[in-house]
Amino acid sequence: MSRNSIGKNLVVTSFGESHGPFVGVVIDGFPSNFRINHTELQQQLNRRKPGQNAFTSPRKEKDEFQIISGLYENKSTGAPITILIPNTDARPEDYDHLKEVFRPGHADLLYQIKYGHRDHRGGGRSSARITAGWVAAGALAQQWLKSRSAKQHPALRGSEIHTRAWVKQIHSIVGKSDSAMESTINTELNVTSSNPKTQATHPYSHFPTPENIESSPIRCPFPQQVEMMSAIEEARNSGNSLGGIIACVVENVPMGIGEPVFGKLQAVLGHYLLNINAVKGVSFGDGFTAVLNNGAENNDEWCIQSDGSIGTRTNHAGGIIGGISTGSYLYFEVAFKPTSTIKKEQNTLNSLFEEISFSASGRHDPCVLPRAVPIVEAMTNLALMDLMLEF
Amino acid sequence: MSRNSIGKNLVVTSFGESHGPFVGVVIDGFPSNFRINHTELQQQLNRRKPGQNAFTSPRKEKDEFQIISGLYENKSTGAPITILIPNTDARPEDYDHLKEVFRPGHADLLYQIKYGHRDHRGGGRSSARITAGWVAAGALAQQWLKSRSAKQHPALRGSEIHTRAWVKQIHSIVGKSDSAMESTINTELNVTSSNPKTQATHPYSHFPTPENIESSPIRCPFPQQVEMMSAIEEARNSGNSLGGIIACVVENVPMGIGEPVFGKLQAVLGHYLLNINAVKGVSFGDGFTAVLNNGAENNDEWCIQSDGSIGTRTNHAGGIIGGISTGSYLYFEVAFKPTSTIKKEQNTLNSLFEEISFSASGRHDPCVLPRAVPIVEAMTNLALMDLMLEF
Amino acid sequence: MSRNSIGKNLVVTSFGESHGPFVGVVIDGFPSNFRINHTELQQQLNRRKPGQNAFTSPRKEKDEFQIISGLYENKSTGAPITILIPNTDARPEDYDHLKEVFRPGHADLLYQIKYGHRDHRGGGRSSARITAGWVAAGALAQQWLKSRSAKQHPALRGSEIHTRAWVKQIHSIVGKSDSAMESTINTELNVTSSNPKTQATHPYSHFPTPENIESSPIRCPFPQQVEMMSAIEEARNSGNSLGGIIACVVENVPMGIGEPVFGKLQAVLGHYLLNINAVKGVSFGDGFTAVLNNGAENNDEWCIQSDGSIGTRTNHAGGIIGGISTGSYLYFEVAFKPTSTIKKEQNTLNSLFEEISFSASGRHDPCVLPRAVPIVEAMTNLALMDLMLEF
Amino acid sequence: MSRNSIGKNLVVTSFGESHGPFVGVVIDGFPSNFRINHTELQQQLNRRKPGQNAFTSPRKEKDEFQIISGLYENKSTGAPITILIPNTDARPEDYDHLKEVFRPGHADLLYQIKYGHRDHRGGGRSSARITAGWVAAGALAQQWLKSRSAKQHPALRGSEIHTRAWVKQIHSIVGKSDSAMESTINTELNVTSSNPKTQATHPYSHFPTPENIESSPIRCPFPQQVEMMSAIEEARNSGNSLGGIIACVVENVPMGIGEPVFGKLQAVLGHYLLNINAVKGVSFGDGFTAVLNNGAENNDEWCIQSDGSIGTRTNHAGGIIGGISTGSYLYFEVAFKPTSTIKKEQNTLNSLFEEISFSASGRHDPCVLPRAVPIVEAMTNLALMDLMLEF
Repeated sequence: MSRNSIGKNLVVTSFGESHGPFVGVVIDGFPSNFRINHTELQQQLNRRKPGQNAFTSPRKEKDEFQIISGLYENKSTGAPITILIPNTDARPEDYDHLKEVFRPGHADLLYQIKYGHRDHRGGGRSSARITAGWVAAGALAQQWLKSRSAKQHPALRGSEIHTRAWVKQIHSIVGKSDSAMESTINTELNVTSSNPKTQATHPYSHFPTPENIESSPIRCPFPQQVEMMSAIEEARNSGNSLGGIIACVVENVPMGIGEPVFGKLQAVLGHYLLNINAVKGVSFGDGFTAVLNNGAENNDEWCIQSDGSIGTRTNHAGGIIGGISTGSYLYFEVAFKPTSTIKKEQNTLNSLFEEISFSASGRHDPCVLPRAVPIVEAMTNLALMDLMLEF
Repeated sequence: MSRNSIGKNLVVTSFGESHGPFVGVVIDGFPSNFRINHTELQQQLNRRKPGQNAFTSPRKEKDEFQIISGLYENKSTGAPITILIPNTDARPEDYDHLKEVFRPGHADLLYQIKYGHRDHRGGGRSSARITAGWVAAGALAQQWLKSRSAKQHPALRGSEIHTRAWVKQIHSIVGKSDSAMESTINTELNVTSSNPKTQATHPYSHFPTPENIESSPIRCPFPQQVEMMSAIEEARNSGNSLGGIIACVVENVPMGIGEPVFGKLQAVLGHYLLNINAVKGVSFGDGFTAVLNNGAENNDEWCIQSDGSIGTRTNHAGGIIGGISTGSYLYFEVAFKPTSTIKKEQNTLNSLFEEISFSASGRHDPCVLPRAVPIVEAMTNLALMDLMLEF
Repeated sequence: MSRNSIGKNLVVTSFGESHGPFVGVVIDGFPSNFRINHTELQQQLNRRKPGQNAFTSPRKEKDEFQIISGLYENKSTGAPITILIPNTDARPEDYDHLKEVFRPGHADLLYQIKYGHRDHRGGGRSSARITAGWVAAGALAQQWLKSRSAKQHPALRGSEIHTRAWVKQIHSIVGKSDSAMESTINTELNVTSSNPKTQATHPYSHFPTPENIESSPIRCPFPQQVEMMSAIEEARNSGNSLGGIIACVVENVPMGIGEPVFGKLQAVLGHYLLNINAVKGVSFGDGFTAVLNNGAENNDEWCIQSDGSIGTRTNHAGGIIGGISTGSYLYFEVAFKPTSTIKKEQNTLNSLFEEISFSASGRHDPCVLPRAVPIVEAMTNLALMDLMLEF
Repeated sequence: MSRNSIGKNLVVTSFGESHGPFVGVVIDGFPSNFRINHTELQQQLNRRKPGQNAFTSPRKEKDEFQIISGLYENKSTGAPITILIPNTDARPEDYDHLKEVFRPGHADLLYQIKYGHRDHRGGGRSSARITAGWVAAGALAQQWLKSRSAKQHPALRGSEIHTRAWVKQIHSIVGKSDSAMESTINTELNVTSSNPKTQATHPYSHFPTPENIESSPIRCPFPQQVEMMSAIEEARNSGNSLGGIIACVVENVPMGIGEPVFGKLQAVLGHYLLNINAVKGVSFGDGFTAVLNNGAENNDEWCIQSDGSIGTRTNHAGGIIGGISTGSYLYFEVAFKPTSTIKKEQNTLNSLFEEISFSASGRHDPCVLPRAVPIVEAMTNLALMDLMLEF
């Protein structure tokens, strides 16, 4: 127990359950005298909230937040910032049947055995609904990171720290840029063992833009989104579900973020990301495909870049070497398992530990990835801010 | 900084540099009145030490440890246990040329910029030599975990917690059991989307045994080890290097380990593992291939097992659901990039930030995976013990 | 920043300001499956709340708490428990004049310089109003401690852990038992250098009872309370204020609580107590008067007590030796400075850093000690529970 | 367990036992590129070491330290700094008789019961010998604090942060300046309720100088040291021991140190100081005598000082208001109990829990205060550096 806080310098404490009055967070360590943009905060919550479109759970939540401490006249005071998000469309009665059933793929049974008493309603504490608070906290971190002009540090390139994630893969369908998008979509990191050293070095402008991403109902900026949407719809219609991979890039991270030896940048990011519900893996740069490179191919040579700054010629490392940011963009991928809640009949145990047959009712997402995109961004921003506060 | 400690209940503090007098650890929180097996501790260090065979760095270190606190008459007193491992074959002069060069793929340049002053000798603090201390700490954790008879907890199956890792893949060569090994090697977790539900549930005995693993010079218990060794030798001969994937299994982990919501078992394990030098990714259970399953395929149904205990029929989740151990074996994979130190000529920067051509001399491993196997086990054991101390 | 949480196993995060919508706490690490007594929790808040009687601030707050997470059907689930206490009688306009004045003895000026932006209303974050949340958290800790029957540990004496504090001194008026109270009030700890070894060993029953304490409007169970009340009234009438000393005793603490070397019981208690507003000192056992004993007088000899258990013949140490509880009662004292808010005219600085003359208006306590009694108890209970969770 | 580290930003991990090969510390978070003065470090250890003169234990230890990590060419690298101090005059056989005896006033019995196994030799882990490591760490903190020219912060007065402690009281003998020392010794803080507002504001130069303090064999800079030395000698000759009070002042602390609400400066200092062996109380500013002031007397009025800077006219608060440093000097006092080891016969228990009569042999201090002076300074410097690293 007592692991509901994350961070060392920016300590985010999460609380709340799916069907209690509120979910929320306390954010401790946020610098004072910083003007909060409430509209941008709400926008981030809107990206995560259910009921956005046909691809998400039909639960209706406005997710209108209240900040009840730490601000005065809209500016932070240095005191802990507490954000409450009401659960307005909680229908606990929908979950009455779950009192007696341990759903497959869910932590119901484990909470019961571990804690001896649980709030079964909508998964209670283990529900992904609690990530609403994380997204709110991440939105503040995002605003702070943006305010840290890269120019503040000599090794930087001159613009804002900017995190964005997108759906890269749903089930076996991998998103790839078509020729029309070639100028805006980077494919460099899909390299296998081919030597990319002759490629352009830091093709920042080639990543999907926020507009590319948000214009897709499932937050996949590639042509394959059409196929993906069909697959998700088919999964839902058949009472099934799908997983996939989210990619994330962070531009303009200053050189030097990350603390050896147990605060390595990838370890801190990994710790934040692996706490997201349904995540089963995380990889940095070429990740699991880096093993297909040999050393000569995989090393990112140090060089003087066209603007005179220090950098790497390639970025197989995903912007992290020795646990420290190189000044290049960060790139990592996060694997999500298919949603555990499905309508198909499965075998499981009831609260008397008898084997039964079960099929889920209630509202849920056939594929969590579209709504998980802002969660990945939020956790990334929180991890980065935590490290940058001691930079 | 101040991130050289890891753990909440079992706090391991790492110190030392590659060519200082010692590397070491302080282990705080180790239970009292526990008899330490020094022979087993030395065996773990021997598995990690250089100069074991033709596949490792020729640096000669006996890695004979000294415990200078926390024990009395060979039993722990509850006080911090400090372990020193001397650097006897340090040849700092070998590294004189590195004073003026920032090696590609290494943190030399980043340490210089981040800290303004560094110990360049053999990588100093960023050297994997410091993992000797981690392996020593992990060996104590292993002994403690073994002593926790699974019978201590009603949900357990009756035998010792047992962690073992092995080399699963080197470059593109994937280890697989042949028919002769079929009875001892599990291949279940190489599943893609085929439905494994009719398979035997918990084929513990089908994982490689420690003897299988240690009998291989590169700690790959599969027939492909021959091909892997050739590839490593070829890489070394051509001044190049290779990466790969280590798999790890932990048997007899009790149900209920892992602390929601920011101490999820996979997040804690991930945090420990992603701090290992050269690691670029970690995945749990089916991991990145879980995305190829649909929900019905991927859910591990709860069931009553043949011995009457609660369990899951399959183990796509790698033994972790909702961040909590299910009582099934843990399974995860760790991706290592190819060694950054290579003899091939590369471009890089010198300490005047001029572009130069560079090829490494000095002693190093053409492939770190064989020696990384005990490091993965050590970090796993430390993470598990940390969580189990509050279980 | 980021120091608004306290505790390692029971992490209490405090948030809120004097005139925001709520003050509150998140309590992380509270064991699951524990039935909360809401009435007892409210009683503790009532003891701290303003407007109790003529000796406290006339601000009217009902301090009716809401628990918005971590409970299901009134029992803890192991998830973080969040308690909100509304600020209903906030009159921010009363404090408009404080926007431009830095009050003497208060942190107004320091907050302004440290944070660059502050909530001046009623002291904002630095107001003792935020201790309402701490008292709520402490009330839960008290319930848990009471449930830990001393019988659970072989070294214990067989009854409930029980913390109680009282006003021992106001200004120069020291409370002492009269002959009528002699049987119920202990005076042993007012020893100087006289040898108390012939006294009865553990006169638990001789401390003031909760009834003794609560029957006094200022929580002083001694005859001198009359004189104290006159002094407080006189201070208020003259626009002045008084400080004093609170004594605290904890009975039935098991032997062995406290963690060497930096979690010594007195250091952990001291850390909690010295964070209470207006506290300027803390001492354990004979405390500052222990220096008047010599070693032979001061040592508490180990003995077998009349019930056969191990104990000390005297308790000069206040129940703590070497940082570990001895099994005897804990005894300590906490010094509070006189309230900084006074109506008398003083010199100070305004927000333009000009010297001005100032006299406070607004509602405040002429002496904080009566209301600080439950705060001392709360912090004590939180500290003890934090340590006992790893016992 | 697992509480052998202290600090958040500067994490000091203590290890070692009285009669093991070494005592030591790991210091994590020390800034890089800082040149260490080894001579000054040794001087601090010399002030603490036994055998200095007739007033200390005759154990002979040179306390020559070795730094085995974190430095390169005498400058810090940002990596953890590990300091070893050998135990050369350990005579474990002197303590053979202690294997079977639980000494009164010591933690022997409590360690045995808490841990089930202990190193009895010289008190093992509970020996004050382990503070040698703390003094070494504190010496580095002192060097860093001195390097922080007060000029770095606008609110500062222009000189070095400077901590010094001295013996103020032994048993009932209170040190006071005579007329000859009047110009160099401050007595302001011995005020009771007399109004000191007409006094000079910040009489920095009136505190004892390091030379005053070190010129006294018992580190008391007052004429009463003669009487104190007689008392200590008499105590030793009669096999008894004495306690006392150490005062400590820190000059040139910038305004703004201390983190609300649970990192208040007095709470952080208190936590460090109350972990020192034999400490029974700590008080800040007027401390326990502040209760004899009324509010009008006790408030330190804000003013513009003669040099134009912001300050307080008096310093009853000891330089801390609302948990934050005011820019005035810090002043606090620490109470030490008389040494528990005495040669006089006392009753106690043996390891069979039988009552026995016991008188200590072995080497020990009849009064720990002279050697505790550098320990108080060390813990103060460590606490301040920890807070200033996030300033």
